[in-house]
Amino acid sequence: MNIDDLLVEPEGLEQVEDVLRCFFERSRQRAASVGPGYLGLWETLEACTAGGKRFRPRLVLSAYSLLGGTDLASAALVGASFELLHTAFIIHDDVIDRDFVRRGVPNVSGRYRAIARDAGMAPAAADHIGFSAGVIAGDLALSNAYRLLDRVHTGPATHRRLNEILDEAVFASAAGEYLDIEAMLAPRMPPLEDILHMARLKTSVYSFEGPLQAGAVLAGAEDPLVDCLGDFGRDAGIAFQIADDLLGVFGSESRTGKTNWGDLREGKRTALMSFVADRPEWEEISSLVGSPAMSAADADYVRRVLEDSGAREYSAGLAVDYASRARRHLDSDLVPRGLRDVLQPVASAAVDRTR
Amino acid sequence: MNIDDLLVEPEGLEQVEDVLRCFFERSRQRAASVGPGYLGLWETLEACTAGGKRFRPRLVLSAYSLLGGTDLASAALVGASFELLHTAFIIHDDVIDRDFVRRGVPNVSGRYRAIARDAGMAPAAADHIGFSAGVIAGDLALSNAYRLLDRVHTGPATHRRLNEILDEAVFASAAGEYLDIEAMLAPRMPPLEDILHMARLKTSVYSFEGPLQAGAVLAGAEDPLVDCLGDFGRDAGIAFQIADDLLGVFGSESRTGKTNWGDLREGKRTALMSFVADRPEWEEISSLVGSPAMSAADADYVRRVLEDSGAREYSAGLAVDYASRARRHLDSDLVPRGLRDVLQPVASAAVDRTR
Repeated sequence: MNIDDLLVEPEGLEQVEDVLRCFFERSRQRAASVGPGYLGLWETLEACTAGGKRFRPRLVLSAYSLLGGTDLASAALVGASFELLHTAFIIHDDVIDRDFVRRGVPNVSGRYRAIARDAGMAPAAADHIGFSAGVIAGDLALSNAYRLLDRVHTGPATHRRLNEILDEAVFASAAGEYLDIEAMLAPRMPPLEDILHMARLKTSVYSFEGPLQAGAVLAGAEDPLVDCLGDFGRDAGIAFQIADDLLGVFGSESRTGKTNWGDLREGKRTALMSFVADRPEWEEISSLVGSPAMSAADADYVRRVLEDSGAREYSAGLAVDYASRARRHLDSDLVPRGLRDVLQPVASAAVDRTR
Repeated sequence: MNIDDLLVEPEGLEQVEDVLRCFFERSRQRAASVGPGYLGLWETLEACTAGGKRFRPRLVLSAYSLLGGTDLASAALVGASFELLHTAFIIHDDVIDRDFVRRGVPNVSGRYRAIARDAGMAPAAADHIGFSAGVIAGDLALSNAYRLLDRVHTGPATHRRLNEILDEAVFASAAGEYLDIEAMLAPRMPPLEDILHMARLKTSVYSFEGPLQAGAVLAGAEDPLVDCLGDFGRDAGIAFQIADDLLGVFGSESRTGKTNWGDLREGKRTALMSFVADRPEWEEISSLVGSPAMSAADADYVRRVLEDSGAREYSAGLAVDYASRARRHLDSDLVPRGLRDVLQPVASAAVDRTR
């Protein structure tokens, strides 16, 4: 998932960097006392956390400040917690997807696979060393996401709510990952309803709903407003995912930074595919989609069928529709104007990328 | 690691079962709303947590009650937290070790590998489905270990200490897992010092030190006593691990429930092996130890060499030595008699199993 600069820079973003920097500095010190190898694993984890757009912390901070919160140190801890959660999910997701590269550079598994190969290990064994390092590094990121929340200065009731929100993010994301596995067991294109449910589980909850709700809860927002931000996040996340899947097939590689036929080759289940799977055109492409042998010419052919069948237009319309739904939730009187002004463009920008 | 009934049944053990039962009941309900597959994953996780000896909760509860604690509901939450942590480590450890069976029954990876095979998947792909399910299930257990601690009724300072203790357990165990990986990259028998350090990281911290210290902290114990229990746990854990490794090579299979040449075949780094690796006898067995082709006759030969070289006797003596060190920590005036009486036999029993 590539989230570009959908959000202006909120106050407190530097503090998020400070929290992460201090956390890793302290962790490196501890790890060094175990040995240079463990220190190296922590350095790798730190590198995986560096350089992101901090989209989730931005949402936390925006919701927090624009709902009247002033303890930026605490909000930064919550933001950093979601960032570490994001790192954990990415690392374990790559293990599950057997990916060794992310955004053109070796990920945790890729780095340790290379070390294992240099040590003379056979390919399959080296792969497994890579996965194993990924499992451990992800565990460290996951557990420390909880740890950072503990340090937030607030009352016990707010603390409990923050932990519940983080928990919901873990629960939903694990469900989404599990459903991916299930799909590999029974390869078929699921109905649209299931695809949107999966988008919510894998994208909305931890990337949109959770950060917004956590920021709001920390600022002392009442439940109806927190629910309303959750509704916005759910629909914005779904819009984002549909648009992202469109970009994965039709986007220019130079803009998305990834090949635009990887998704076709792996048979990724998207709204686009679900639409065409229900139509006669599916017969023409079903043997190509999800085939590891797919060529660039095959991909072009599939894209043309998706275009001609109306699947592309349908999906683009669906993304626009979910973005409008998201924006409509913000029309509630509960949402203060400043926050509405910041979040409206998030929903729109998610979709505009596909134009 | 097999820990038998080293500890009498402390008060509160049933509450630990209640906590776990309620936690899984609620989780199953939530998972069912996602779908039957995710529910199945949770049921598998619950099955992995069932039927253990609850050694770590027993330590938590013993320390807590014998240091004057009376809020058994809170102590049970701490105990259940360590039990879930144990489940998480076992599941991810099995992924890393590529094990599909634990104690004679399929583990998480084994169950999902079987499902994938039944669905017609190729062997390597089915293995990876198994590992992936293991990664997700372990993540759920790990994150919920933190969640259970949140529900403990106590002040913020104690809360922070409990979280630090859990964190230390995760940090040390991850380090131990990492060092196992490192060992695969550079197969050599490390010096005894490293082996004992690894035993501490992998066994002492989360199975002995953490539970005892958490129980003590919850009961309001002062730092010197908490430190003293940590010292006991460290040495008792090391004694336990040395003894366990002896059982893994010389134990009767009917008693340990596992083959007594698996450790030899995988070249497990133990005090036993470290001793012989420094002596001329090593040449006779170094090509056998760690060889996947090792036969039962080879194993018998290696055992004889370990016996004749004095490695067995040396290791047994080392275990006895660490058990005495552990007991000596309990001689401190800080440790109340009731707790000493319960913990002394733990250190002794760990070693007696090898007699």
